[in-house]
Amino acid sequence: MPLRFDILNTVGDARRGRIVTGHGPVETPVFMPVGTQATVKAVPQDVLEELGAQIILGNNYHLYLRPGAEHIAALGGLHRFMSWERAILTDSGGFQVWSLSEMRKVSEEGVQFRSHLDGSLHHFTPESATASQIALGADILMAFDECTEYPADRERARASMELTVRWAERCKKAWIAARQPRAAAATHSADHAEGESALFAIVQGGMHSDLRRECALRLVDMDFPGYAIGGLSVGEPRHLTHEIVEATLEHLPKDKPRYLMGVGTPEEIVEYAALGVDMMDCVHPTRAARHGLLFTSEGKVNIKGACYAADQRPLDPNCGCRVCARYSRAYLRHLFSTHELLGQILNSIHNLAYYLDTMKRVRHSIELGEFRSFLSGLQSRNSNSPARAPREDPTIAPSRE
Amino acid sequence: MPLRFDILNTVGDARRGRIVTGHGPVETPVFMPVGTQATVKAVPQDVLEELGAQIILGNNYHLYLRPGAEHIAALGGLHRFMSWERAILTDSGGFQVWSLSEMRKVSEEGVQFRSHLDGSLHHFTPESATASQIALGADILMAFDECTEYPADRERARASMELTVRWAERCKKAWIAARQPRAAAATHSADHAEGESALFAIVQGGMHSDLRRECALRLVDMDFPGYAIGGLSVGEPRHLTHEIVEATLEHLPKDKPRYLMGVGTPEEIVEYAALGVDMMDCVHPTRAARHGLLFTSEGKVNIKGACYAADQRPLDPNCGCRVCARYSRAYLRHLFSTHELLGQILNSIHNLAYYLDTMKRVRHSIELGEFRSFLSGLQSRNSNSPARAPREDPTIAPSRE
Repeated sequence: MPLRFDILNTVGDARRGRIVTGHGPVETPVFMPVGTQATVKAVPQDVLEELGAQIILGNNYHLYLRPGAEHIAALGGLHRFMSWERAILTDSGGFQVWSLSEMRKVSEEGVQFRSHLDGSLHHFTPESATASQIALGADILMAFDECTEYPADRERARASMELTVRWAERCKKAWIAARQPRAAAATHSADHAEGESALFAIVQGGMHSDLRRECALRLVDMDFPGYAIGGLSVGEPRHLTHEIVEATLEHLPKDKPRYLMGVGTPEEIVEYAALGVDMMDCVHPTRAARHGLLFTSEGKVNIKGACYAADQRPLDPNCGCRVCARYSRAYLRHLFSTHELLGQILNSIHNLAYYLDTMKRVRHSIELGEFRSFLSGLQSRNSNSPARAPREDPTIAPSRE
Repeated sequence: MPLRFDILNTVGDARRGRIVTGHGPVETPVFMPVGTQATVKAVPQDVLEELGAQIILGNNYHLYLRPGAEHIAALGGLHRFMSWERAILTDSGGFQVWSLSEMRKVSEEGVQFRSHLDGSLHHFTPESATASQIALGADILMAFDECTEYPADRERARASMELTVRWAERCKKAWIAARQPRAAAATHSADHAEGESALFAIVQGGMHSDLRRECALRLVDMDFPGYAIGGLSVGEPRHLTHEIVEATLEHLPKDKPRYLMGVGTPEEIVEYAALGVDMMDCVHPTRAARHGLLFTSEGKVNIKGACYAADQRPLDPNCGCRVCARYSRAYLRHLFSTHELLGQILNSIHNLAYYLDTMKRVRHSIELGEFRSFLSGLQSRNSNSPARAPREDPTIAPSRE
């Protein structure tokens, strides 16, 4: 297996680990900023580095359409293209053809779809989606899956899950076949193949725990370097998400990274880390930031509020980010009200800082064996927080792009 | 006079000087980035510092409307509000009520206008525009002027110029009256009154050289700390702008800063520095950046061009800015094509770097007595440049906001 994953400490089900990629280590549990189109929206790469991001997401669907995976490959791969020397995980595009494309025809072979940009016709197969992610040079690539719609009855969810399993097998074959020539080429091209890529499988099965269990066991049987839980945050109630995550996790191997896709709020990323999730990603921090919803150690701040117009305090007095170190709530409110780009920039930087710092504190408290008291401290604070949950904000959805 | 201005070197009419404000020195000739709404669009303050910006513009019209000059004053002034410790010059709003407001009624008393934001009714007088800029805490404030439309016949231009002269006198009275209590208050409030403000008068007179001369002489008679040339770049041909600038400059005192408002292209800022202009500002670098038009030492780059899709070179191989140090033209082109905010950020940073660096090289070459060879080197390069002048781009106008 090309991906090294060490578990350093545990507290209950929570794990403090380290993934070693060809582009450096990733300390887990980790929150991965989403850089769909080869950029984390409104945040320059040097700021991401400063914030301590060790891995970001890229997206095969978006990059395949613009500027093209082969195009990026010809320019030396995604790391070089976007000048990001740390790790990159790419989503396969399974979720995006499901959620974004204009027309979608699923067959055993793959998915035919029309681009959401110009209506042009395209085709993804497990093999092509794998080849495309390898061309991008992702450190971690995702199997091409079918995301099951919600709600879906058992029959529909089973058929979709079984297709995902068959596709996962084809992805693995394509990945293994590609590894041989690529490893050989690595000695000639230092830019593009510093480390080998790792393929993660995605567990589907709708909201049916037994199907999730079956999917997990069948994928684990195929022995992937890591496992993801997909098909959640698709409209189901939060308690159901939580239930399915728990039901799936118990069937995933303890010694492999576990990635929960498209999650979540600041509270949720801590809760799922407590359940033993190692990796999470979500557009929520950056998208909420662009809508003026900011996360702080004192609760949520809707920066458009008139109550902040004369508020000279930093956004979060307990945050060390460059935004909180320099600017006032009054200024951030002014930037938001006047639709100034700097508002979107500063808001995005702060929200990412908050997410990344939250995970850093999770890791630290696991290391110190103090994770339980950290958790209960958070929960009592959240139950006192007057702000409504950001999920209820109708302007902010969904959690994957 | 509260504003210290030293001329350190000259080459022909060009001057290498230093203005000392209450918020630090300003090395001249200087290009001043435009921060209309208390932000230089898309560029964070720490990046402006890194780029070497020593003074930026604020705008009384915009800040009066949102969030309000008194509001900013109550928060400690514009410097503190936007966390900018270097110098700020504010435009009085004379140009903006002329170019932006929905309805404008000019009387001897002042201007009644409707906000371009919500149609609400407002009134600016020379006294109120001066008080408002003092409330903002500007280091340099501008007299409230009437910008003369183009074309304007001699009679109309004379009436407008004479109104501007009478208003300048009222602005000066208001400014002097405000200085006494403010200087006294400074000992009590370190935040807001570190240095005294300086009021610059604005020369008008349309495209009539004799009216410009008369306006200049009458304003010089009133003895202002500095003089600006306004009412240009309002639709007239470039050669006329140049002619009027020359005709006006010769009547402005050599020992005072001379500010040419709303100018210009990279070529123009050098040309006008050669004529003896000390200060310039323009939205062109940031606005052009947002439209994908970038300035480099090798000529203009329209980054949306397909020819840059696989161009791995930095935008400008001779530029030391953080954009050119890290990103390729191919990546900048991708960001522009996909409408990503990072594209606007990086483009704006580079264009400002180019303008500020150009002026730095102007200053350096004057210091070394090599300005003439610097100028002729630039001119021969520009005449070989295949790119069309950015002024001709219909999407980019005007030069003031």
